[in-house]
Amino acid sequence: MSKKLIRGGIVVTAADTYRADILIDGEKVVAIGAGALFSKETEGAEEINASGCYVFPGGIDPHTHLDMPFGGTTTADDFETGTRAAAFGGTTSIIDFCLTSKGQSIREALDTWHAKAHGKAVIDYGFHLMIAEANDAVLHQLEDVVEEGVTSLKVFMAYKNVFQADDETLFKTLIRAKELGALIQVHAENGDVIDFLIKEALENEQTDPIYHALTRPPMAEGEATGRAIALTALAGSQLYVVHVSCAEAVQRIAEAREKGLNVYGETCPQYLTLDISELARPGFEGAKYVWSPPLREAWHQEVLWSALKNGILQTIGSDQCSFNFKGQKELGRNDFTKIPNGGPLIEDRFSVVYSEGVHKGRISLNQFVDITSTKAAKLFGMFPQKGTIAVGSDADIVLFNPNVTRTISAKTHHMNVDYNPFEGKEVHGEVVSVLARGEFVIRDKKFVGTKGNGRFIKRHKFGASPTLKEEQPHVL
Amino acid sequence: MSKKLIRGGIVVTAADTYRADILIDGEKVVAIGAGALFSKETEGAEEINASGCYVFPGGIDPHTHLDMPFGGTTTADDFETGTRAAAFGGTTSIIDFCLTSKGQSIREALDTWHAKAHGKAVIDYGFHLMIAEANDAVLHQLEDVVEEGVTSLKVFMAYKNVFQADDETLFKTLIRAKELGALIQVHAENGDVIDFLIKEALENEQTDPIYHALTRPPMAEGEATGRAIALTALAGSQLYVVHVSCAEAVQRIAEAREKGLNVYGETCPQYLTLDISELARPGFEGAKYVWSPPLREAWHQEVLWSALKNGILQTIGSDQCSFNFKGQKELGRNDFTKIPNGGPLIEDRFSVVYSEGVHKGRISLNQFVDITSTKAAKLFGMFPQKGTIAVGSDADIVLFNPNVTRTISAKTHHMNVDYNPFEGKEVHGEVVSVLARGEFVIRDKKFVGTKGNGRFIKRHKFGASPTLKEEQPHVL
Amino acid sequence: MSKKLIRGGIVVTAADTYRADILIDGEKVVAIGAGALFSKETEGAEEINASGCYVFPGGIDPHTHLDMPFGGTTTADDFETGTRAAAFGGTTSIIDFCLTSKGQSIREALDTWHAKAHGKAVIDYGFHLMIAEANDAVLHQLEDVVEEGVTSLKVFMAYKNVFQADDETLFKTLIRAKELGALIQVHAENGDVIDFLIKEALENEQTDPIYHALTRPPMAEGEATGRAIALTALAGSQLYVVHVSCAEAVQRIAEAREKGLNVYGETCPQYLTLDISELARPGFEGAKYVWSPPLREAWHQEVLWSALKNGILQTIGSDQCSFNFKGQKELGRNDFTKIPNGGPLIEDRFSVVYSEGVHKGRISLNQFVDITSTKAAKLFGMFPQKGTIAVGSDADIVLFNPNVTRTISAKTHHMNVDYNPFEGKEVHGEVVSVLARGEFVIRDKKFVGTKGNGRFIKRHKFGASPTLKEEQPHVL
Amino acid sequence: MSKKLIRGGIVVTAADTYRADILIDGEKVVAIGAGALFSKETEGAEEINASGCYVFPGGIDPHTHLDMPFGGTTTADDFETGTRAAAFGGTTSIIDFCLTSKGQSIREALDTWHAKAHGKAVIDYGFHLMIAEANDAVLHQLEDVVEEGVTSLKVFMAYKNVFQADDETLFKTLIRAKELGALIQVHAENGDVIDFLIKEALENEQTDPIYHALTRPPMAEGEATGRAIALTALAGSQLYVVHVSCAEAVQRIAEAREKGLNVYGETCPQYLTLDISELARPGFEGAKYVWSPPLREAWHQEVLWSALKNGILQTIGSDQCSFNFKGQKELGRNDFTKIPNGGPLIEDRFSVVYSEGVHKGRISLNQFVDITSTKAAKLFGMFPQKGTIAVGSDADIVLFNPNVTRTISAKTHHMNVDYNPFEGKEVHGEVVSVLARGEFVIRDKKFVGTKGNGRFIKRHKFGASPTLKEEQPHVL
Repeated sequence: MSKKLIRGGIVVTAADTYRADILIDGEKVVAIGAGALFSKETEGAEEINASGCYVFPGGIDPHTHLDMPFGGTTTADDFETGTRAAAFGGTTSIIDFCLTSKGQSIREALDTWHAKAHGKAVIDYGFHLMIAEANDAVLHQLEDVVEEGVTSLKVFMAYKNVFQADDETLFKTLIRAKELGALIQVHAENGDVIDFLIKEALENEQTDPIYHALTRPPMAEGEATGRAIALTALAGSQLYVVHVSCAEAVQRIAEAREKGLNVYGETCPQYLTLDISELARPGFEGAKYVWSPPLREAWHQEVLWSALKNGILQTIGSDQCSFNFKGQKELGRNDFTKIPNGGPLIEDRFSVVYSEGVHKGRISLNQFVDITSTKAAKLFGMFPQKGTIAVGSDADIVLFNPNVTRTISAKTHHMNVDYNPFEGKEVHGEVVSVLARGEFVIRDKKFVGTKGNGRFIKRHKFGASPTLKEEQPHVL
Repeated sequence: MSKKLIRGGIVVTAADTYRADILIDGEKVVAIGAGALFSKETEGAEEINASGCYVFPGGIDPHTHLDMPFGGTTTADDFETGTRAAAFGGTTSIIDFCLTSKGQSIREALDTWHAKAHGKAVIDYGFHLMIAEANDAVLHQLEDVVEEGVTSLKVFMAYKNVFQADDETLFKTLIRAKELGALIQVHAENGDVIDFLIKEALENEQTDPIYHALTRPPMAEGEATGRAIALTALAGSQLYVVHVSCAEAVQRIAEAREKGLNVYGETCPQYLTLDISELARPGFEGAKYVWSPPLREAWHQEVLWSALKNGILQTIGSDQCSFNFKGQKELGRNDFTKIPNGGPLIEDRFSVVYSEGVHKGRISLNQFVDITSTKAAKLFGMFPQKGTIAVGSDADIVLFNPNVTRTISAKTHHMNVDYNPFEGKEVHGEVVSVLARGEFVIRDKKFVGTKGNGRFIKRHKFGASPTLKEEQPHVL
Repeated sequence: MSKKLIRGGIVVTAADTYRADILIDGEKVVAIGAGALFSKETEGAEEINASGCYVFPGGIDPHTHLDMPFGGTTTADDFETGTRAAAFGGTTSIIDFCLTSKGQSIREALDTWHAKAHGKAVIDYGFHLMIAEANDAVLHQLEDVVEEGVTSLKVFMAYKNVFQADDETLFKTLIRAKELGALIQVHAENGDVIDFLIKEALENEQTDPIYHALTRPPMAEGEATGRAIALTALAGSQLYVVHVSCAEAVQRIAEAREKGLNVYGETCPQYLTLDISELARPGFEGAKYVWSPPLREAWHQEVLWSALKNGILQTIGSDQCSFNFKGQKELGRNDFTKIPNGGPLIEDRFSVVYSEGVHKGRISLNQFVDITSTKAAKLFGMFPQKGTIAVGSDADIVLFNPNVTRTISAKTHHMNVDYNPFEGKEVHGEVVSVLARGEFVIRDKKFVGTKGNGRFIKRHKFGASPTLKEEQPHVL
Repeated sequence: MSKKLIRGGIVVTAADTYRADILIDGEKVVAIGAGALFSKETEGAEEINASGCYVFPGGIDPHTHLDMPFGGTTTADDFETGTRAAAFGGTTSIIDFCLTSKGQSIREALDTWHAKAHGKAVIDYGFHLMIAEANDAVLHQLEDVVEEGVTSLKVFMAYKNVFQADDETLFKTLIRAKELGALIQVHAENGDVIDFLIKEALENEQTDPIYHALTRPPMAEGEATGRAIALTALAGSQLYVVHVSCAEAVQRIAEAREKGLNVYGETCPQYLTLDISELARPGFEGAKYVWSPPLREAWHQEVLWSALKNGILQTIGSDQCSFNFKGQKELGRNDFTKIPNGGPLIEDRFSVVYSEGVHKGRISLNQFVDITSTKAAKLFGMFPQKGTIAVGSDADIVLFNPNVTRTISAKTHHMNVDYNPFEGKEVHGEVVSVLARGEFVIRDKKFVGTKGNGRFIKRHKFGASPTLKEEQPHVL
């Protein structure tokens, strides 16, 4: 196996910031050392100059939708283009959502998703499993699913008549998750309310993209978040609220955590930086900004940053779900409900959060690593294999130059999609090189990885620690 | 310089838990490596077997009173006995409070404190400086004080006519601290209220130790905490509330942090584990449990643990301030106000928090390191020299065996005092060996250190990072 | 028409407490005057001595279930026995719930309920209408319903597969209510969760009455309350939460009111005075205490009293729903789910709240009138015809002697049921005489009323004021 | 004695709204009756046509400063001009602040204040007594003071070196108030902080009126409010916070009331309707808007209205303290600290609150009466003599035409001062006639009262009820 030595950078983890060199042997970090004293061991190693760079653990994106069918079309990015773009952006692991439908066998669903990723991904990947209904057959199969390393399950409280599960399903799944050591994820919006508001809007011929946001009010998210938390408390289980977008949801999560509940929250770069006015862009451009939950009024952004700073929210996912403006987003030109939901963010998640968070002084450098990598690894059973730079961990490493700026653009991005929601935005800092399990994927801003090199990550149960060989009541 | 290799332990930092060996060269950690691959560099190093142990960063006790005069007597422990006991307990750095009085020169006060510590301390030490009044002379001298590495200033809101400062003094000091990069600490209790309640108690011949607690109600602490926070917000400054004992104070700190204020809080082992009933012990035994703030009703304990878990409180200090029961505590036999305030906790702080916190599942192993070491280092400008195990850091290291129990007793403790507030308490885990700047102080539970080896720690300004050479708006 | 003069009492309204005489002419209060000066007008009037008594507006019970089928049996009290008992207890108006079922015509349901009451009631009555599903036919019929004076609509969030409506139904009904000027009432418990917990309990052979309470946790009520409030806010409508039993629900209502929402809450005497331990009584006696929501741990009681005092809750209903212990409650001897829910409280509501509230110093005398009468009249469109003692109001009046005690017992009560949940409880104060629309119903503690004298109360729309001939945005 | 009959109006109290006629005999309301039936008794009475009018209880202004020396000058209005203007505005009782200074005898201070009012006031008046220091002599004299009917005591937490009391004084006064049955009032601003900020502003040559507001930040008020509440809780006493101006203070009062404390709050018309931008008016016009606390940013206004609606605040005082712009306010042309604090509001308090509150739909008609009259009467021991329209109460009555508008102007107002802070403001509703103890003071908008007819109101102790001859634990 080959050795590499990353020299001269500033190593940053969720706790530490220090100057040191990192010795990689094969896929793993085998030593971290200082200057001249650390010389014999590194003989024969390829030297990589990290001078002037932060040396970060590779980013972990816990929320992606690659090669996903939605409303009669399919996301523009698959596991090849999506993971390559992720790597360009400093991300070395993703967890993608394996969809299921009522009546479908869980086995079949997982096999389908393995087939989508296998041979294509350039970085490692895991799966969350969507639960469409919690009948006895499904609940029984979950034991095998968790043993296979798919230790997180997603329930939708929105998308009525499509993905939406009722409270009984959510409650049963929470109870089963507790038994099995899985973490439940919810898309928390009240689908009944939204469904009604949408019908009302369409009846009133309110078909423009802005109505997507106006029919999904913050209180519909706050309500569902509170409900999911209440059911979690009653089940004695654990909950992770995906893509938190608004103050109402943050408040419920904060209350839950103060009571000592195992409740966690994720937000996304778009909610931290963009606002509802984007949906009112002329010329149907608003369609590019259609996410669920939708963008909110700008004041919510500081609430989300504060929640990250204070540990109320733990992670940042991209909710990558890209559709081309031409031909895909355009499906909803006369009816906002036909606009495929989602956008391309897998590539810029890491650097937008660095620039808006660290550079603008909202979070510390260590918090940046924590929320873009470490906490996701801990919550989703990948730590310390992923999510840190430590001896024994996978050599998933990003060299990041904080002293330059770059301008985001669809012309230069690497996602397979014809627009970028951050078009024209200047960000501070740039990913220079990326190693995944010891091999360069990006080197000096060029892709040097290999399609299919990404492996499935068999994740541990919630709270299980491979280092300690015991369950931890508190994973964070 | 000699090399040491700590082998086979589980390294635990505020973020990480992993198996690795640690190479020490002289005073510093120079490399961290894995197993066989990590061999050449370590030739000639003394091997230390850490098998079965956690390898923790040395504890930092940010709140001690050694060799301190109080009410006509002096604490039982000085810098020699106190720091030796600290080392036995897994603590490798302390920050002691340098007292001043109105009219006294700051220079003289600091010189006095340096003289107390120099040549006696077996581990490293820093100083906080008490501010008795904020006149122009004092405010002027603070510039030099901060440059010398005394970057935290303490203001008392209690002890009327003794230490108590008025709001004007606190406010001016907060404003000056902001200019200079110092962190203000407050003893937050409303001295006016307490003074009145004490007079009333004594008039009613209520002289037993329990009246110490009953004349210092939680609301007097909550009020003063809220006031200090309001003044901090108005000054745009930074605040650290020492020895938080009750829910009322926690609530105010939580509110402040949600608003994004730079407000931090410390609690102590006694408030986490003991309650007001101790003060009612027969035979004047209650005097052993006289702290200010006093022990509270037991329900406050879980509020404090939850605040540590959720990041509302950041650190644990011992508030070490030992007085013998015989001859010292006894001064207050007929009048609780004559009981010297304080107790011996410097030795058991670390292991009591481990046992009650980690072993009982209230906090994670990483959180334990964070609150007993890392956060104090970061807040008080000693990071990453102190507070972590990383390449380049001081080799302040504790080998801790989690798989044994021990019973705390004054018969076996190493503090120079005739009782222990935890007498008879069984705790899980035991400090086996302790290194301070690369040298053993404790080896296999025996003291092998050297009087006077402890050095003064010149601390950085609040928010300053030696690694980054820039100010950080958010140090945590 | 005959005149009556109530002399020498202390008149108490929601705002005032003063000594005066009250002149009644026919059904109405026509004058209130003082002593000798007030003499000519009262010539020929029958004098009623109220000396030593409070003269209260007749109580209004906004929550009764008389002659109601439930689980194969029917409540023990019908409109005759129920309203007679109400009158004995100081209540002169009730609002009963008209049940409906899916597919049933609203007209038919209301006709059925009119038939139950007409010719039987001894005091005036109104109806709330239950909404089982919000289809177009139902929503259309509601216009007539509101015009008829049935201006409040009830939606159940619990009793899965029986009464439970989904969020869509609740949301549509809230929107329709806003258009029509109706007030929506919710039974707020999460039926999905409860249904699951019940199944689980029965599977584990947990069949005793205590499991009724254990399968309906407070958080299931708090969650549903929060959800109903969120939907109300989104609909811009108005909400009245019936039978609030716990702190979790109170908290949500308090938050809603602070935000300025038109959200109101009712509690019941049992939640203010009894606790969950009653359900564990030996010999199946616990079945007498089966309400939904269930009795809670005792500490919730002070939260409810405080919420009444601070205006977070506005009213007290009895939730009268009586079933005999013999033959009815006994249906659930082997299965708590077969115990008919509810109890006999219509008679003691008024005096238990006086005794526990006013006599024990928890609320003021004026607040007592407000919560047992005035606020219900205002919220449900009967003010100032009902709910106060003022010129022009119906002469619904209670003479109440506060200076005696009585002991509640099934042996002496007037409800048609074989037990009383307050059996043996001593209460301060006693209803002496009761007038309804100017006629005695109770005179010196004897029933002198007439079956069928009670009339249907055609209620005003929400916020409508007959005095002002305009809508009021704020009715309270 | 003469009789009067007020015919055809809509009587409004804190609870009721109904059509009735009011019979006055001498100073008292002796009967309230309806239409034709109410005829014999009223023979010989002077008929007053109230058709089209609301008939309100006379307003009570619990916060005035008439004939008060301040900073070397004296308020423009004395008890003659001030009470006449009050009457024009619908106010029939005031409570004025009797100032004291350290060392002064309380007797002397009260005698001085009696002399100021006696023979001048056209409406009734009571006194609050300021406590400058709580030494034994003062605490002893308070017993007589309370017996004389001065049952409320004011403590200043601001105006350092002038009125400001320390926490010990406040705490002792609270304890003494509890013993005697007095209500403590606080001016809640942190004087130490403000004093420092003022010095700093002046050093920076920031002398314009706007700096008055900028040196008294909301947090200084919130802090002091929280401190006063904490001391009240510790003393087990009762507290009334005067002139609450901001959200921070409202929050503390809300928390206190939720805990069941006897804590009350007053706001003023200016805080409900004007904002900080007024102080930046050109040409030194900002000086007209100098109050302490100062006007706040506009968003605080809705917080205050919501607090009134939800019962967190109970009353509205004018804080009448008028100084002419010419010659008085101008004293501070070069130094904002020389601007006499205060403004002329006694006349417009009532109608501005009606117009902005009731007419704009923020509060109900009954709430308007409650907050401008009834609650003040209850809290300050004047109920039911004052504060309502009920048999036996003083005939203090306002006829108010809600169907006209008027424009406020110094040209037409009746205060003895050369400007009006509401100059040019159009308000809905107008005071037509005012009776005080049965005699017209204002008739058809003309003054017909008599100088010196106002009497001192001997107030009851806190919680004492003349009707019930017993203490009430809850006065509201």
